[in-house]
Order: sequence, then C-alpha cells, then structure tokens
Amino acid sequence: MIGPRYTPLVASLPETVPFVGPETQERLRGRPFRARIGANESVFGPSPRAVAAMRAEANEVWKYGDAQNHELRQALAAHHGVAAENIIVGEGIDGLLGYLTRLVVAPGDAVVTSDGAYPTFNYHVAGFGGVLHKVPYRDDREDLEALIARARDVAPKLIYLANPDNPMGTAHPAASVAAMVTEVPEGSLLILDEAYIEFAPDGLAPRIDPADPRVIRMRTFSKGYGMAGARVGYAIGAPDLIGAFDKIRNHFGMSRISQAGALAALEDQAHLAQVRAQVAAARDRLAAIAAENGLAALPSATNFVAIDCGADGDFARRVLAELVARDIFVRMPFVAPQDRCIRVSCAPETEMAAFAETLPQALAAARAG
Amino acid sequence: MIGPRYTPLVASLPETVPFVGPETQERLRGRPFRARIGANESVFGPSPRAVAAMRAEANEVWKYGDAQNHELRQALAAHHGVAAENIIVGEGIDGLLGYLTRLVVAPGDAVVTSDGAYPTFNYHVAGFGGVLHKVPYRDDREDLEALIARARDVAPKLIYLANPDNPMGTAHPAASVAAMVTEVPEGSLLILDEAYIEFAPDGLAPRIDPADPRVIRMRTFSKGYGMAGARVGYAIGAPDLIGAFDKIRNHFGMSRISQAGALAALEDQAHLAQVRAQVAAARDRLAAIAAENGLAALPSATNFVAIDCGADGDFARRVLAELVARDIFVRMPFVAPQDRCIRVSCAPETEMAAFAETLPQALAAARAG
Repeated sequence: MIGPRYTPLVASLPETVPFVGPETQERLRGRPFRARIGANESVFGPSPRAVAAMRAEANEVWKYGDAQNHELRQALAAHHGVAAENIIVGEGIDGLLGYLTRLVVAPGDAVVTSDGAYPTFNYHVAGFGGVLHKVPYRDDREDLEALIARARDVAPKLIYLANPDNPMGTAHPAASVAAMVTEVPEGSLLILDEAYIEFAPDGLAPRIDPADPRVIRMRTFSKGYGMAGARVGYAIGAPDLIGAFDKIRNHFGMSRISQAGALAALEDQAHLAQVRAQVAAARDRLAAIAAENGLAALPSATNFVAIDCGADGDFARRVLAELVARDIFVRMPFVAPQDRCIRVSCAPETEMAAFAETLPQALAAARAG
Repeated sequence: MIGPRYTPLVASLPETVPFVGPETQERLRGRPFRARIGANESVFGPSPRAVAAMRAEANEVWKYGDAQNHELRQALAAHHGVAAENIIVGEGIDGLLGYLTRLVVAPGDAVVTSDGAYPTFNYHVAGFGGVLHKVPYRDDREDLEALIARARDVAPKLIYLANPDNPMGTAHPAASVAAMVTEVPEGSLLILDEAYIEFAPDGLAPRIDPADPRVIRMRTFSKGYGMAGARVGYAIGAPDLIGAFDKIRNHFGMSRISQAGALAALEDQAHLAQVRAQVAAARDRLAAIAAENGLAALPSATNFVAIDCGADGDFARRVLAELVARDIFVRMPFVAPQDRCIRVSCAPETEMAAFAETLPQALAAARAG
C-alpha cells in the first residue's frame, strides 16, 4: 500500500514545525513557566464585558456562527469609518495572511518582506510556492525605502510591512507609511500589518482611503483587546479584494463565542485605554530593568520591549536559554543583528518582578557559559 | 491604480457565495426563524460540562491556544484506541477538508465524489483546481461500487464518502465500508466523513487500522456533541499523513475556549448517549409527521430526516420556500432525484411541533402554486 500522493509543492515543504508554543515547551521541560511573557499576549487580559459575552454565548454554541460575521463587521465598519464591504473577518491575522497569500501567490511569484520580519507570513508564502525577497532592517526598523526599491526590482505580488514592527517594537510615523503606499508598484499589494497598533502613540496609523487597491491593513483582537485565544482578526481593504476572500475562505470558520467576544471587546474602548496605560507603564518598567542590568531597551510602540543584550546573537541566545531554564518564557529575533536582543512582553508587576529577579542570574550564567 | 493580481486559479473561481447561513436569511427576511432545523445543528445542545468548561476558559482567552492541541489529541487517542500521532485537530471538518485538499490536489488532479454529496468539499476541490468526477447515488445511498469503479478509471487523489450520508441520512454497514477501503486504488486516499456517526446504530463505524495509508476518517464536535459554533473537527489517519498537515495548517488556528469545550464534551459520554436517544425519538416524530401528511420519511442514521415530498425537485423547492416563508428553516438536497426531498433536523418538541403545524400549510401552498 502506498500513501497519498502529495502535490509537488507540498512534498517540497519542510516537515519541521516552526512554531513551538509555550505549552509545548512546558511539556518538554516538565514544568510550567513562572512568567508567560514571550508571545506578546496581553497578560492584562480582555475586557470583562468580552468575557461576559463569551460566557453567555457558550449556551448558543450548538449553532454555527454567522458565516458573514455581520454584526462584528458592521461594528468594525462604524469604528473605523468605512463600509462593511471594506472588512473581512477571519481566524486571526495568521488565517487572513494564509488566505491572502493563496489569493495572489502562485508558485514562483515574488514576495517582498524584511529579513527577520513575521515568520508566519513567510511560512504561508513558502506554503503557496512564493519566492521571498528579503531586505535588511535599518537601525532596527523595517526599511521602507528598501522594501519599495526591491519591489520595483522584482514586481512582487505582495509587500509585507508591520507597523509597529514585530520583533523589534519600532515604528514609522504615519506620514512615512502613507508616502510608501503611494510608491507601491502597480500590481503589487502592500500588507500593512497593524497587529500592535493599539499600543502605539495616537496618530501612528496613517489615513488610507479604504478603496485604495494598493494596500490591505490587518488588525487583530489578539493583542490590544487581549483575546489571542479567541482567534479573531480582520482586514480593511478595497471591496473587490475583500470580496475575493469569499472565493476561498472557510465560510463557517469562525467560533460563535469568539464573534460575540470580539463585538463586546470593541464596544469597551475604556478597557482598551486602561490596557494601553498599563502597557506603557510596563514598557517603562522593562526599560528600567534593562538599565539596572547595564542593558539598553529599544523604544517600543508595542506591548513588548526588545532588550539589547549588548553582544551578538549567540550571547542573546544564551541569555534566553538561561531565562527559560529559570521558568521565564521569552522569545527573541531570528536574524542578525536584531538577534542581539531578547523580546519581552509587557505584563503586570508579578511577571515584571519575576523577570527583574531572574535577568541578572541569566546574564551572569550566560557570561559564564 | 490597478488592484492586486490574483492567481489564474483564483481569477477563474466563481464570486457567488455558495453558503447562505440562517442568519443571512433572517437578515434578508427581516425576521427570525421560529424553528432552526435546517443546518443539522444539535438543537438539544452540548454537554453542560462542556458549557461550564468554555465559560471557565473565557478567563484564559488572553493566551493563544496550544498549537499542538495536545490534551485534546491525547483524550481523543484514548477514546479511539489509537495514538496521538494518528490524530489532527482542526477548525471543523470544513477546515480539515481544506487542508487535506491542499496537501494532495494540484490543478488538474482528479477527485471522485457522489453527485449531490457535501458541497463544501467540492468547494475546496475547485478552490485548489481539482477536477471533480461525480457518480450518482443509488437508491438514495452513496454508491460504493460506483465510487471505486470511477476511481479505477480516473486515478483520483481523493475519494469522498460520507457514512452516514448527508443530505440523505442513509448509511452503509461497517463491513461494506471496510471492504471498500481494500479496493481503494494505489495512490488514492479515501476520505471517510463520519460527521454524523454518533447518531448511527452501534457498529456502523468500521474497524480501520489507523496506520492504513488509504483512508482518513473525519469526525467533529459539531453534530453529536452539539458544538457547531466552536469549530472543532478532527481526523484519524496514518502518522505520515497526519504529520503532513503541520506543513501547511494555521498552527495557532484553534480557539482556546473551543479546545477546552471539546475536551469536556468528550469526557461526558453520558450526555452524548442522552442526545442519541433524543435524536432517535425526534427521527420517529419526523417520520410520523411525514406520514400524517401522506409523505414518506427516508430511514436515517443521522440527526436529520429526508422527507420525500412525493414529486419532483421543483415541487420540493416550493415546499421548502413555503416552509421558510412560514419561519421554518430547513434545507434540501441539490441534485435530482434526491431533490424530491426536504431535509429536516431533529430537535426538541417545540421545533417539531412548529414543523408539524406548518408542513400541511406549506404542502397546500406548494400544491396550489
């Protein structure tokens, strides 16, 4: 008996799993983490109104969710001052990035991103046979000019930009991003991943005509709204593009409980404002912890802080390993020279204190190692 | 400004949305349904323990779900007497059918199914450029011999069989399905969709070696477990095939709340047994309602009943329209001669009584129309 015949593309894909979650690490280690500050989850939690809405909706879970995500799209449209036809809701930004890549990327098609930017996007591009063209960061920021220059060279189907950036936490001002949109080559589509925008200073999100076919912006309830486990992302774009998702998406893919939670979370902007303030204070706390250890924290427009460990990637990887060995879950950038940093998520004081206590030990062990 | 350049395959796909959910119908009608008995949801609801688990987990929704679905896969493995390596959990059977199609179907590849079988599977096959070869039902059942014969002709990547069948509710005995597995041509993979298996008589699910590379079986928490809105499906298959999903799936695609709910639902087999009994009684009730109206109900191994309206598809479509106009949400088969039937989901007496009251009016209106 022979097995199924995979497509040539699938047969060529690596079998390694690039995404090792904290639960998997806990199972491998045989004990739980003391501080879960590695996945940029919002340890401050979601709106109590969102939790209440999800609890109430649990009774209705025998029904499929609304395939149109109608109520949530209407609310998002009102929130953003666009039409519902400009909004697609999906299973997190990860799910939407997969759909979008499938819509435009055929084997051999070019895609432009930054070297060290969001690996899940790269995973989807590779999964549909796209060819990634990567430009380096400049001064720990994604390099808008280099992205556009490379796009002019390779005529990509997609250009990826996260603003604010993950994993560095840096950001470009709205005017720079708006200017970049005008430079997108014809036939290319800019993905503006704004997963962390709720943590950024007011005004960082550029004004973009929702009918502009050159850009699609991605938002999520996983970060500012504190609902990573609910899997609700959305994209804002031109109606033709938004409508194209209906050709391929899993129409009944959304959890009904998550739909209800996202709607309630959106309506509780007061909670979001409170989380923003807590995150800002935690960023300052992380910068102070870094300074106490003779390290520099990069300025951040997100709910995490990249801390420059002061040497190369090997050293930062040792620091990270020593933190993990001491039950502190953090992550770090993949690519030099950004991999001189570790990436620490903002959290309440319990987690911040655990990190403050552990970092000196981890640094000492890394230096001795 | 030109828009994004879609792949040739995507450009060729229809823009029409094939899946019009009950909420969409309610918005178009301007009023809610009185009885929601059209989508084979379990109106009897999920286990109270599953609801309690989901409510409790709402507090933890700030965390991503476990990308490995470890606890649920362990529990499912124990339940089925297989290894965790035989099980993949995904965003409903719909999501898993999409992933599986992507794994094996390249443009032009053949796929075999029955004419009138699950349209979402056809949607995924078309979405990846596969060529569908359909064989007719025989005596309102999927025709195992015809499926295999066609497979011998066209060497398909996939063969689809739902047992019990949707939309007819009919079923083949375990021995027939087991015998069919031995006839799967080399290089083809049989999808055995057992979404409705919990409602079938004991022993209808064949014993299949989980290492057998010729078959993958699909199960769901949407039907018997009453959690359609949670989006939890799983597949049982050979470890190589199960592992291949990791090359392309949305690793963090599962709702954390849904994971917790499915685990609790699986542990409450007493609730499932109670639902099975309620469904069996409701099937009898639907058959009695049909008989009272001079119509025949097909025997069903599912939580729905196909009622033969006694004439052709045009007449059944009129009956369905008259039911919908009277606020009864039901659906019907797409293809002749099965489209002489309407398909009615089992439900508690409130919904059954509403259907019993409305059907004579709908039949009279359809006959007058």
